[in-house]
Amino acid sequence: MALGKDYGQQDCALARTLELVGERWTLLIVRDAFYGVRRYSDFLAHLDIPRAVLSARLQALVEAGVFDKHRYQLSPPREEYVLTERGVDLWPIIRTMARWGEKHVQNGVACRLFRHLGCGGAVDPNGVCATCGAPAAPGETEVAPGPGANTLHRDDPVTRAMRTPHRLLEPLLP
Amino acid sequence: MALGKDYGQQDCALARTLELVGERWTLLIVRDAFYGVRRYSDFLAHLDIPRAVLSARLQALVEAGVFDKHRYQLSPPREEYVLTERGVDLWPIIRTMARWGEKHVQNGVACRLFRHLGCGGAVDPNGVCATCGAPAAPGETEVAPGPGANTLHRDDPVTRAMRTPHRLLEPLLP
Repeated sequence: MALGKDYGQQDCALARTLELVGERWTLLIVRDAFYGVRRYSDFLAHLDIPRAVLSARLQALVEAGVFDKHRYQLSPPREEYVLTERGVDLWPIIRTMARWGEKHVQNGVACRLFRHLGCGGAVDPNGVCATCGAPAAPGETEVAPGPGANTLHRDDPVTRAMRTPHRLLEPLLP
Repeated sequence: MALGKDYGQQDCALARTLELVGERWTLLIVRDAFYGVRRYSDFLAHLDIPRAVLSARLQALVEAGVFDKHRYQLSPPREEYVLTERGVDLWPIIRTMARWGEKHVQNGVACRLFRHLGCGGAVDPNGVCATCGAPAAPGETEVAPGPGANTLHRDDPVTRAMRTPHRLLEPLLP
């Protein structure tokens, strides 16, 4: 059944958010951007989505002010997609969604572990450092494979790079 | 473009969550359930979605363990949809999504205000009571129209009932 993208009759901030990031695959693209993926070819290799869908989603995220597009190569022209401040503010949504899936679908087994870089403490379910009590902003958070990670079922560059702990938002690949 | 509902190649708790609640309209149905909507006819009146879509989404949410179905009338048979514990755990997702839309699409103007019933304090952007510092669970949270609410553009029973402050999760309509 074809359904539009908007929720015009819904007077609600949640509906406004879903209009911008609620389409299929969009939040997985944003997740990869937090992991440090920036280039079209890397999103494509990691997400296995049709090129037309990836292009449309990236373009929509640029129009929504979630990504800035930076040219990193002139010939042939190539662009990187980098989260804006507005995009980085999507982190609590990504975090709470991943937390729910971990608790309720994966029996509490984490695919990814998040650590507060300031003091090394684990990030708790509320996004707060369990050691120092500070809210763990994504730029101060390290992601590492968790006990539930099945990193062997894929062998693309993003999956390989994600086997090593690294800071969120930092470029993942050279 | 037809895209499936699953993300089988994505080894990620976020993908598992999106498989259960990422379809179009699903999170708006869950939002209404937090507001106290329980009956098919009330979801239908408030959401303006095709009956087939609403029925499919409610059924999927029952199968996902997000809603329990309770028969409240024998003849003709009528059922209510009530959030399970697993469903109530979706609150941080709804809250963080609404917060993002409020901040980044609505220029900070809230359609709904949330208050901690324990002490009367406002719920802050992190879901914590600004007065007493306790995390505001949905069952201890009151929702009331905010300055950005445009409650006059609709006149269904849910919209009318939402003009009065009430506790989340409590049945909204008789």
